[in-house]
Amino acid sequence: MSTLREDAQSVIEAALQATQPKNALRRALASLKRFGGRLRVISIGKAAWSMASAASQTLGEQIDCGLIITKYGYTYGNLPRFTTMEAGHPVPDANSVRAADAAIAMVQGLNVDDTVLMLISGGGSAVFEKPLVPLPLFETTLNALWHSGADITEINIIRKRLSAVKGGRFAKLCAPATVIGLLLSDVMGDAPETIASGPISPDPVTAVEAERTLLRLFPDAPEPLIRLMRRETPKLLPNAETRVVGNVAMLTRATAHALQSLGYETCVLTDRLDCEAREAGRMLSAIAHSHQGETRSLAFVAGGEASVQVRGTGKGGRNQELSLAAAPRLEGLRDTAIFSFSSDGIDGPTDAAGGFVDCRTLGRLRAAGLDVDNALLNNDSYHALRACDGLLVTGHTGTKVNDVAVVMIRR
Amino acid sequence: MSTLREDAQSVIEAALQATQPKNALRRALASLKRFGGRLRVISIGKAAWSMASAASQTLGEQIDCGLIITKYGYTYGNLPRFTTMEAGHPVPDANSVRAADAAIAMVQGLNVDDTVLMLISGGGSAVFEKPLVPLPLFETTLNALWHSGADITEINIIRKRLSAVKGGRFAKLCAPATVIGLLLSDVMGDAPETIASGPISPDPVTAVEAERTLLRLFPDAPEPLIRLMRRETPKLLPNAETRVVGNVAMLTRATAHALQSLGYETCVLTDRLDCEAREAGRMLSAIAHSHQGETRSLAFVAGGEASVQVRGTGKGGRNQELSLAAAPRLEGLRDTAIFSFSSDGIDGPTDAAGGFVDCRTLGRLRAAGLDVDNALLNNDSYHALRACDGLLVTGHTGTKVNDVAVVMIRR
Repeated sequence: MSTLREDAQSVIEAALQATQPKNALRRALASLKRFGGRLRVISIGKAAWSMASAASQTLGEQIDCGLIITKYGYTYGNLPRFTTMEAGHPVPDANSVRAADAAIAMVQGLNVDDTVLMLISGGGSAVFEKPLVPLPLFETTLNALWHSGADITEINIIRKRLSAVKGGRFAKLCAPATVIGLLLSDVMGDAPETIASGPISPDPVTAVEAERTLLRLFPDAPEPLIRLMRRETPKLLPNAETRVVGNVAMLTRATAHALQSLGYETCVLTDRLDCEAREAGRMLSAIAHSHQGETRSLAFVAGGEASVQVRGTGKGGRNQELSLAAAPRLEGLRDTAIFSFSSDGIDGPTDAAGGFVDCRTLGRLRAAGLDVDNALLNNDSYHALRACDGLLVTGHTGTKVNDVAVVMIRR
Repeated sequence: MSTLREDAQSVIEAALQATQPKNALRRALASLKRFGGRLRVISIGKAAWSMASAASQTLGEQIDCGLIITKYGYTYGNLPRFTTMEAGHPVPDANSVRAADAAIAMVQGLNVDDTVLMLISGGGSAVFEKPLVPLPLFETTLNALWHSGADITEINIIRKRLSAVKGGRFAKLCAPATVIGLLLSDVMGDAPETIASGPISPDPVTAVEAERTLLRLFPDAPEPLIRLMRRETPKLLPNAETRVVGNVAMLTRATAHALQSLGYETCVLTDRLDCEAREAGRMLSAIAHSHQGETRSLAFVAGGEASVQVRGTGKGGRNQELSLAAAPRLEGLRDTAIFSFSSDGIDGPTDAAGGFVDCRTLGRLRAAGLDVDNALLNNDSYHALRACDGLLVTGHTGTKVNDVAVVMIRR
C-alpha cells in the first residue's frame, strides 16, 4: 500500500500534468481558424518557454517568427523560429526593456491580415517592460510604491501608466494586425487586464482614478509622473481578443480528480483561497481533526493563493507556511496529512514547491530542536520543513496557475 | 418564502434550544443512581442559573441546599433551596471570594454518604475564586500575567496554584463526600481540568513545570509566588468524577441538523475552528464564492472559537469580525449569506451574539460611509455591522458552548 506521502506526490504529478499549457494550448489553437497573413508569436512570463513550445508543436511552419521572454533560468533549449530573451523578475531590469523593444520591433509594419499570437503567463509584468520615464525615475517610483503600503491593485494602476507596453498599449502597437492572447492565469478571477499587467487588454481604470491614486500615495509626486497618469490607456481594442487557457480552477479540479482516482471521497472547498497562509493551515488542520471518525478515505481541496505577512527574516513561502501551521494539530492523527504546493514549483524565494505534514512532523521538529511557533514568527517555514522531511520539491514545472492545498484522511 | 436572514434566525434558535443545559442535564441526572446522604448543588459560571434550574426541576426535594455563583446580571429569579451570588467577570472581585467562601462552607462537614453536585460552565474561573495570597498581590500578578504575552495555557498553570479552589483543590475540600461534576464545555477538546480552571479535576501540571513557567515569564517573581508554584495540586481525586453534558460538537451538530431541516445539504467542516476570526471569515467567503454554481441549497458549518488580535480601539467580537471579514466577497452573490454567533449570546464586550452578512452588506456599509478594512483595522466590527443591519442579537441564552459559523447558499 502506498504511503500518504506517495499519494500526495502522485496527486501533485497528476495536477501538474493536467495544467501544463501544452494540452490547453493545443485545444485552443485547434479551435482558431487558420491564420491568414504572417503569424508572429510572442510568449511572455514564467511559463513562456513551455507555452511557446506547445505553440511551436501545434503551429509548426505556420509561425513566421517568435520571441520567448522569460525569467533568468526559465528556458529549456532552443525552439525552431523562436528567439529567447531572459530578463529580471520580480524587478524588471535593462533586459526587460531590451525584450520589450524586440517585441515591439517584431510587431511593427504588420498589416491587417497578419496575426500576433500572445502567450501570456504570470511574471510577464516584470520581464517585459518599457518605461515611459527615464529608468532611474522608473525604478525609484516602483521601489517607493512597493514600500508605500499600497495594495497590489493600486500598484498596478500606476505601473500600467508608467509603461509603453502595459494596460493594453502593446495591442495598440500591434495594430492593424489581429492580436490573439492565450492566457495562463495566476490571478483569482482571471481578469485578463490583471495577468502580466494586461499588455493586450483594455484598462478599466480611467486617467482620473489613476491620478487620484498616485496623489493619495504620493501627494508630492513629480510632474512627469502626474502627466503620465493623465495619459489615457486604451479602453477599446477591437483588434485584440484574449482567452484564458489555464487557471487555478483547473488546478483545483485536477487535484480533486487525482484524489478521487486514488479512492478519496473529495470535497472541493474553494478555488479562491486568499486568506493568510498560516490561518488557512490552522483551519484545514481543524477540518482534518474533526473528520477522524470517518470510515472512508476523505480529502478536502482548497485552491487559490494564500498570503504571507513577512515579519521575520527566515526563508519560506505561502505553501510552506500553510503546511507548517497545520502540523501541530496533526500530531496523533492516524493516516492524516496536509500538503500545499505552488503549481510553478517555486514557493516564495525557495527551491521547494510547498510543504507536506502529517502526524510525525511535530515529533521530528522537536527532535531537531525546532518549534512551529518560532519558525512561523520568523517566517522560516523552509528550514523547519527541511528539518522534518516536509519539503515538496518539483523543480520548475512549466505551468503557473497558483496553488492548491489538500487535507487527506485515509481509512 | 423565508429570507436568508429568517433561515439564519431559525437555525440559531434551534441550535440554542438543542444546547440548553436543561435537556442534557436531565438526561445525565436520570442516569445517575439516586443519591444516598445529603445532596448539595453548587453551580458556577455564566450558565450557572440555567444549569441550577434544570437540576432543581429534575432533583426537586432531593436537593438539601444549593448555591448559584454567576456573573453580575446573569440570574433570572429565585430557585427553591438555592442561594444566588453574583461576582466579577472576567476579573474576579471581592464577591468572587465571598462566593468561594460560601461554597467551601457548604461542603464542610459532609460525610462519605453525601454528594456534592457541581454544575460547571465557562466563566466559573472568575466568579468563584479564593486566592492563596493577599488580594493586592493576587490582582497585580493576574494583571501582569495578562499583559506578559503569556498564552492562556501558561496563565492557567499559574492561576490554578494561586487559588484555594482551582486545579482540583475544591474536590479535596469536599472530601470525604462524593463530587459529581456536570460540565458545559466552552473549551476545544473538553478537557475538564481546563473548564473554569478545573475546580474538581486533577491538575496534570507538576510543581516543577509551574515554577519553570512562572520564572520564564517573571524571572524576578517574589518568593511567596514561587512557594505557591511549588505547592502541589491534586493528581488523583478518587472522590470526584466529571462528565461533559454540552459542548461545541453538540452545537455544531444541532446547527447542521437545523440547516438540513430547512432543506440545505450540509457539510460540517469542523468543530475545532480556532484560527484568526477575520481569516476564517475570508476563507468561508471563498468557500461561498466557489459554490455559486450549485443547483441545490447548500450549507457549510464550522464550530469552534476563532480568535481576535486586538490592535484597534473599536468595539466588536470574534463572531462579528468573522462575519464582517466575509462581507466583501459576498457582494453580487445571489442568495448567499454567512453568519456566526456565540452560543452564550454575548460576543466580545457587546450586546450582540454575532453577525450576519450577505450580498447587500457591502452596499449598505458604503451608503453609511463605512469600510470593511478600516473597521477591521480598528477592531470595530460592532459599529460596522450595526450600520448595515448585520448584528445578531439574542440576549443571554442560558448556555455557553462556544460559537458556530455558517455559510448558506440557497437555490
